Amino acid sequence: MNQLSDIGLTGLAVMGENLVLNMASKGFQVTAHARQQSRVDEFLNGRAKHLPIIGTSDLKTLVQSLKKPRKIMMMIKAGDPVDQVIEQLLPLLEPGDIIIDGGNSHFPDTIRRTKYVESKGFLYIGTGVSGGEEGALLGPSIMPGGSPSAWPHVKPIFQGIAAKVEDCSICCDWVGEDGAGHFVKMVHNGIEYGDIQLITEAYHVMREILKLSADEMAEVFIAWNKTELDSYLIEITGDILSFKDEDGHPLIDKILDTAGQKGTGKWTAVQSLEDSVPLTLITEAVYARFISSLKDERITASQVFTSKPIKFEGNKQAFIEKIRKALYAAKIVSYAQGYALMRASAKTNHWNLNYGGIALMWRGGCIIRSAFLGKIKEAFDLNPDLLNLLLDPYFKQAIENMTDAWREVISTAVLNGIPTPAMSAALNYFDSYRTKNLPANLLQAQRDYFGAHTYERIDQPRGVFFHTNWTGRGGKTSSTTYNV
Amino acid sequence: MNQLSDIGLTGLAVMGENLVLNMASKGFQVTAHARQQSRVDEFLNGRAKHLPIIGTSDLKTLVQSLKKPRKIMMMIKAGDPVDQVIEQLLPLLEPGDIIIDGGNSHFPDTIRRTKYVESKGFLYIGTGVSGGEEGALLGPSIMPGGSPSAWPHVKPIFQGIAAKVEDCSICCDWVGEDGAGHFVKMVHNGIEYGDIQLITEAYHVMREILKLSADEMAEVFIAWNKTELDSYLIEITGDILSFKDEDGHPLIDKILDTAGQKGTGKWTAVQSLEDSVPLTLITEAVYARFISSLKDERITASQVFTSKPIKFEGNKQAFIEKIRKALYAAKIVSYAQGYALMRASAKTNHWNLNYGGIALMWRGGCIIRSAFLGKIKEAFDLNPDLLNLLLDPYFKQAIENMTDAWREVISTAVLNGIPTPAMSAALNYFDSYRTKNLPANLLQAQRDYFGAHTYERIDQPRGVFFHTNWTGRGGKTSSTTYNV
Repeated sequence: MNQLSDIGLTGLAVMGENLVLNMASKGFQVTAHARQQSRVDEFLNGRAKHLPIIGTSDLKTLVQSLKKPRKIMMMIKAGDPVDQVIEQLLPLLEPGDIIIDGGNSHFPDTIRRTKYVESKGFLYIGTGVSGGEEGALLGPSIMPGGSPSAWPHVKPIFQGIAAKVEDCSICCDWVGEDGAGHFVKMVHNGIEYGDIQLITEAYHVMREILKLSADEMAEVFIAWNKTELDSYLIEITGDILSFKDEDGHPLIDKILDTAGQKGTGKWTAVQSLEDSVPLTLITEAVYARFISSLKDERITASQVFTSKPIKFEGNKQAFIEKIRKALYAAKIVSYAQGYALMRASAKTNHWNLNYGGIALMWRGGCIIRSAFLGKIKEAFDLNPDLLNLLLDPYFKQAIENMTDAWREVISTAVLNGIPTPAMSAALNYFDSYRTKNLPANLLQAQRDYFGAHTYERIDQPRGVFFHTNWTGRGGKTSSTTYNV
Repeated sequence: MNQLSDIGLTGLAVMGENLVLNMASKGFQVTAHARQQSRVDEFLNGRAKHLPIIGTSDLKTLVQSLKKPRKIMMMIKAGDPVDQVIEQLLPLLEPGDIIIDGGNSHFPDTIRRTKYVESKGFLYIGTGVSGGEEGALLGPSIMPGGSPSAWPHVKPIFQGIAAKVEDCSICCDWVGEDGAGHFVKMVHNGIEYGDIQLITEAYHVMREILKLSADEMAEVFIAWNKTELDSYLIEITGDILSFKDEDGHPLIDKILDTAGQKGTGKWTAVQSLEDSVPLTLITEAVYARFISSLKDERITASQVFTSKPIKFEGNKQAFIEKIRKALYAAKIVSYAQGYALMRASAKTNHWNLNYGGIALMWRGGCIIRSAFLGKIKEAFDLNPDLLNLLLDPYFKQAIENMTDAWREVISTAVLNGIPTPAMSAALNYFDSYRTKNLPANLLQAQRDYFGAHTYERIDQPRGVFFHTNWTGRGGKTSSTTYNV
C-alpha cells in the first residue's frame, strides 16, 4: 500500500462509501477519509475488506497519500460543511491540485467556490452525482462543472465509474464552467420530483378511482415499463408495489404519506421564478410534498369535508391505458419545462450547455434514467436550437396521440375529487402554450386601470405602450414607480 | 408658506403625486420633492395649484421645511435608489427623525434598512401602500411596519389619508416590526395576482366556451359584483369590458395578451417555497404571466397543435353561474393559502401579526378590496388561531356549496382545451388538503428504495424511521448526506 492513490474521498455516508467501492472496483486506488476513525475502521473492515482502499481520519494523511495533481472529492452535507472542509484542505494543497464537491450543493455556491478556490491557485469541480446508493456503487450519472483545466485530470476516473448505456455511451461529460454541473444536477433533481409526483398521481387515481390493489398496480407498472415509459422509476415502482411486509401484506400500505420537503426541488422551482420560466409541473410537485407533510391538518380537514363516494363505471383496462397516456403526456411537458429552464439559466450564467449531451448523461445511471431521454437526445440532434421540446416532431406527435386520454383522466379525477396537481398543471401549461390569444389582455387592462401600467395593442407595433384614462378621474401621469 | 410642513415626500411619479394631493386635501402641509426642478414646477403649477404644498428639488430644503421629528416619505423605485436616497438623507437628519419607504420594497431589504437606519440613531418605516393611482389620491390601504416608536408620529397622517370602510374602520394600522409592513404588502400583491388571474380565467372560459361578447361579459361582471364576489377588481372588470375604443368596438379586444412578469408576485411565490407553504394558486398566476409573455412561441405552437372545435350544448346562463361559483371557491382557496404563508413567515420572522386586522386593512382602499375580506375578518374574530381559512365554518359551508359547479367548470375547460391553471390548482389543493391518505407513501418508498432516505409507518409512532433493503443489493447504511 505504498503506492499513491489516484483520488481521495472524504465523507463515508452511503453515497461516499459506494463511490469509493465503485472506483476501487474499476482499478483506481482510493484513499477514503472520515472524521471519525471508528467510521473509517468500520468501512475498511467491512464492505471495503480485500479492496485496495486506504483509510484515514486525518486530512493531511489523506492529501499526502495522493498522486499529483491531487484530486480530493467531498461527499459531505451541502452548505457550511463544504466551506469548512475547503478551508481545511487549502493549506494542505499544492498549486494545480483539485478539490471536487460531489454533494448536492446549490449552484450559486459552486460558482462562488470555484472563483474562490481558483483565486488561491487551485482548481475546483462541483459535480452532480445521481443514481442513489445503487447508482453510486454500480455506475452513476456524473455531471461535472467548474475549472475547465481540472477536467482532463478527473475525466478518466469519472468516466471510468459512470454508467454506460447500451450503445456504449458514457453518462458523464463536461457540463460547463463554475456552477454548470451542479445547476444541471439541480434541474435533474427537479425533474425527478416531477417524475415521482406523476407516478404517485397515477397510483392514486388507480387506487381510489379504480380501487386496484397494490399487487394489481404492481402488474400495471411492470407492464408500463415495457412501453415508452420504460424507466428506472417505473421499474422500481413495480418492485415497491409487489414488496411484502413481514406479515405478508404489501409494505406500501403501511408507509406514512408524508414526504420530505427541502432541497433541490425547491431550488429548481425558485430558479424558474427568478428566470421567468413557467416550470409549473415541478413546482406543483414540490408543493405536493409540502401538503403531504401537513398530515394532522389533512386528517382534520378530511373530517370537516365529506367525500362523495367514487363511481367508476367504465372499462378498467381501457382507463388504465388512459392513465398511462396521461402520465406520458405530462412527462413530456415536464421535460419541456425543465429544458426551457436550462436554456434560460444558461443564458443568464453564460454557459454553453449541450442539451442533447445532458439528455445522454441522464440516459443511464441516474434516478430519472429512461428510454425517453434517448428520444430527447434525438430531438436535439435533429435541431440543436429547439425552442421547446413540444415543438419537436416526435414529441408533438406523441402528445397529440395522448391528449384525449389525458383530458379524460383529469376530468374524471376532478369530478371524483382525486387530486392530480402535476398532471393538471402540465395540461394547463400545454393548453396555455398552444393558445395564440390568452386572456392576459384583460389583465393588462386591469393593471392599466388601477395602476396606469400601460398596455400594447394588437393593431400597433410591439413596444408601443398605451394608457387609457378608464374612469376620467385619474391623472395623466404614467406609472414609473411601480411594477406590480 | 413659512409654516413648517407635517411631512415631506420625495418622488413625484403618479403614486407620489397622488399621495401628496391626498395629504394636502386632508389638511396636512406637505413638502414635495423631485430631483428635477421642472418636474416639481410642473406639479406645483398643475395638479397641486392652489393647495398648501411646498415644492423643492433640493433634499436639504426638503428636510429643513419639516416639523420635528421629521417625516420623509420616499415614493421611488424599489431597489438601489432607496439605499441611495437613505444615504443622502442621513447627514441631513437629527436623532428621532423618521425615514419612510412607501414603495414596493422587498421585505428583507426593509428588515436590513430598519436595522441600519436605527443604528444611525434615526427611525425607519417601510410601508405598503395599495390602491393604485386612484387609491393613493382618494384613500389607499396603508400597511406600515418598521421602528415601533415611529408609529405614533406617523399614525395621524397615515390614518388620516387611508381608506375608510362603511363601518368607519380605517384601512391602516401598525403591522409589526422591521419588514412586516412590506411583507404584508407583498402577500397582498401576490393575492392580487391570484384574484386577477382567476378573473381572466373566468373571462377566458366565457369568451371561448360560451362565445360571449365583451358587452355580454360586462353584464355578467356587473351582476357578479352584487354577489359574494363584490369587489374592486370585479367592478373594474365590468367597466373595462364595456369600454369602447374610438371606433366604437370594445377596447379589450384590441389589447395585446402579454403581461408584465416581475415584482411582488414572484417574491410571494419564492417566499412560499422558502417557507414550505403550498401557495399553488398565486404561483400559477405568476407562471401564467410568464406564459403570456411568450407571445411568439405561442403563435408558433398554436400553428403546430390543432385545436378541436369547442362544443357547448348546456344552458349558458346556468353555466355562467357555475363559473361564478368556481371563481368564488378558488378565491377562498387563494386567501387560505395566502394566510397560511403569512402564518409561516410570521413565525420565521418573529412577527406577531393580527390576521383579522390585516383583512380589515385590505377591506378598503386597496386593489383587492372586497366584501369577502369582511368575512375573513369575522373568521379570525371567531377564532384568532384559525389554522386554515377553509376550516372556518362560513368558508367551509361556502366552499361545499360551490364544489359541484367548480368541478364541472374545470372538467368542461379541460375537455375543451381551455386553460384554467389557477382554478385547477386551487381545486387540486382543496382535494389534497382534505385527503387523509395522499399517495406520498409511494414517494417515500421510492426515496427509500433509491436513496435510503427512510420512511415512517402508519402502525408506528411518528418520528421513528425505517429503511428497507428493497433489492437486497444495497448497503445497510442509511442516508445522512443527501436530502433529495
